Amino acid sequence: MQPVEGQALRINLDRLLGRINQLAEIGAIEGGGVCRIALSDEDRRGRDLVVGWMQELGLEVSIDRIGNVIGLRQGTGPGNPVLTGSHIDTVATGGRYDGNLGVLAGLEVIETLNQADLTTRKPIGVGFFTNEEGVRFTPDMMGSAVHQGLFDVDEMLKVVGTDGSILGEELVKTGYAGDTPTGSFDAECFIELHIEQGPILEIEGYEIGAVESVQGISWTEYRLTGVANHAGTTPMHLRHDAGYVAAAISVEARRLADEMGGDQVATVGVSALDPGLINVIARDALVTVDLRNTSESKLQQAENTMSEFVTKICNTEGLSFASRSLARFTPVKFDPGMISLVTDTATSLDYKTRRVPSGAGHDAQMFAPNCPTAMIFVPSRDGISHNVAEFTEDEHIRAGADVLLQIMLNKSA
Amino acid sequence: MQPVEGQALRINLDRLLGRINQLAEIGAIEGGGVCRIALSDEDRRGRDLVVGWMQELGLEVSIDRIGNVIGLRQGTGPGNPVLTGSHIDTVATGGRYDGNLGVLAGLEVIETLNQADLTTRKPIGVGFFTNEEGVRFTPDMMGSAVHQGLFDVDEMLKVVGTDGSILGEELVKTGYAGDTPTGSFDAECFIELHIEQGPILEIEGYEIGAVESVQGISWTEYRLTGVANHAGTTPMHLRHDAGYVAAAISVEARRLADEMGGDQVATVGVSALDPGLINVIARDALVTVDLRNTSESKLQQAENTMSEFVTKICNTEGLSFASRSLARFTPVKFDPGMISLVTDTATSLDYKTRRVPSGAGHDAQMFAPNCPTAMIFVPSRDGISHNVAEFTEDEHIRAGADVLLQIMLNKSA
Repeated sequence: MQPVEGQALRINLDRLLGRINQLAEIGAIEGGGVCRIALSDEDRRGRDLVVGWMQELGLEVSIDRIGNVIGLRQGTGPGNPVLTGSHIDTVATGGRYDGNLGVLAGLEVIETLNQADLTTRKPIGVGFFTNEEGVRFTPDMMGSAVHQGLFDVDEMLKVVGTDGSILGEELVKTGYAGDTPTGSFDAECFIELHIEQGPILEIEGYEIGAVESVQGISWTEYRLTGVANHAGTTPMHLRHDAGYVAAAISVEARRLADEMGGDQVATVGVSALDPGLINVIARDALVTVDLRNTSESKLQQAENTMSEFVTKICNTEGLSFASRSLARFTPVKFDPGMISLVTDTATSLDYKTRRVPSGAGHDAQMFAPNCPTAMIFVPSRDGISHNVAEFTEDEHIRAGADVLLQIMLNKSA
Repeated sequence: MQPVEGQALRINLDRLLGRINQLAEIGAIEGGGVCRIALSDEDRRGRDLVVGWMQELGLEVSIDRIGNVIGLRQGTGPGNPVLTGSHIDTVATGGRYDGNLGVLAGLEVIETLNQADLTTRKPIGVGFFTNEEGVRFTPDMMGSAVHQGLFDVDEMLKVVGTDGSILGEELVKTGYAGDTPTGSFDAECFIELHIEQGPILEIEGYEIGAVESVQGISWTEYRLTGVANHAGTTPMHLRHDAGYVAAAISVEARRLADEMGGDQVATVGVSALDPGLINVIARDALVTVDLRNTSESKLQQAENTMSEFVTKICNTEGLSFASRSLARFTPVKFDPGMISLVTDTATSLDYKTRRVPSGAGHDAQMFAPNCPTAMIFVPSRDGISHNVAEFTEDEHIRAGADVLLQIMLNKSA
């Protein structure tokens, strides 16, 4: 161990940007974005590129049964590996940073240590996890959940994709149906660098976010059925207007989020009326409600409030309705010690930092039940992601990768 | 004149239903409905059938330059004709009563008088007016408006249909490009029998509605533009959510109508979100607001309230918007004497009657500025129209036609 040297070490930004840009060429789409959907041919080529880099860096590469790839660098002493990583699959209109940054910054940490000829006491590792985005195969965050024993691998291998393909068969086709068992990997800790995908850090002028939690997610779909009728000849008190009730649900979702405050968010992104004509009272409406909170009890409170509201207003308006849950994830709290390590490390490197919740799901949340876990966020320009316009400034990439380097050195000492 | 005989006269329901059913065979669609769109081949065949009946009944048939057809029966004395009528064009999914009832009940009045060998002092007439529905050619109520000099006939002949056809050319093709001048027809009065197309009469147990007014109509389209963003990572106070504002407009429209009361109605029948995904804050929304009132000042008050609301909430939410008027008709008040004549006549025939506003537009409103005008409504089952399920009970058809007969006798005496 060479602690003084380690604390002075910094990553090589150009080398890291070079890898980011090289990986972004595989599945490149117009506007600077990337389409590299899980277990597609583009994903295979991206995986091959990253595995090649792992091998060049001297890492021991293992591939497990769900296609997760871990590259390990041995330490001088015993202990479980300090693990970092993320994913390299993208959505159809993805950017070049989401997921990829966390994996390639991990490789940059390795190369920085290699060049400094610095060996840590505990082993360190970099992984990328299969099908984080969940575009072609659901659920999302599949590989990390299987890796940490939260999903059953044999069940997941049978999952049928949106194109009718079987996940296990696609793994074989891409050459990433490995034989390393899943669910038994013991990490010293897990730390993931990721773009924020939201606007808080940029707007408030922070360079590093210490992610303290991942919001729980509740998705509910409502199908409302009223009576189509003439907009001119039907008195207000005789209406059974599915369009009005759909609107009232959206307004209630906003009111609820404002009233609860904190990090409660509520979104009605789908509100489709039928027949959808200017002079016809809508008969049917399809509405979705997306509720998120870092507190499970508050998320349940929000769900109950919305559910009671929908029941009550449908009764008042004389509508029938059917509801179903489309997704439900419990909130995740990260490790207090790991969170403090992120803020302390960022501060020691003169980066402005604050604690933030994550509104999106990440691979790190699957490690949280099993080992000390946290995440490092760097700003997203205009808060935009899952979009070819996704962008993070070079200096913020440097900041995130240097914080990652120092945390991995700290934890592997 | 034979007043005692006249008061005892009643129409022949079977004969009237026979004509309704025979006309409904032209353009018949599944479920018992009719598709006979203005100046289509079906409309031509429907016109030919009705004109044939007019000729059989001994009426003098004239066709004007916009294709309106008037059948006149001479009186024993001088005077302008007592006119009734409606339209025989339908919407694409129309019923068999809307419009047709008023025309065919007029013919039934003529045949009843013919059979009784009763000649009125003033002439009486039955008309059907071109393109009331406005499905293929806009504006709607075109023929009656031209007939009464409210629209310019040469302008209307140039109107281009949704299928690219020219109205004047289609008139020629159907054989209904007449040579009678428009805008100079002097009627003693105009009385139109029509189905209610709303639920009030049925729900409240009335057989005859005396229409005292036609609601003014205001249609406004709003295009809202916000910012698409992640439903999980975007804090509530940083949102520019076009979906939320669309919903708030709909809820405000309902609140406004409830607050104003009376016959004010407000409908948001179109609310379309883009991209319309469960976990994406909507960037764009297209919203329509349909406002109707029988009072022009109240209609303006409703328009102003909505307009101020949209401006204010778009400012608050940080949206831009564009609005445009899609339609605007001033309310029409019918003649007090004619309205009383409807209620008195219905009462004398032992029919339960009340005064009602019309929420839909009708040919009669184009006569209202030029001669004493009113309408007779009969109940619509479940308030449904513009639908193959449109239905009016036989006994209500009898009631409406007998009231029409007595009013025409009264006014032509």
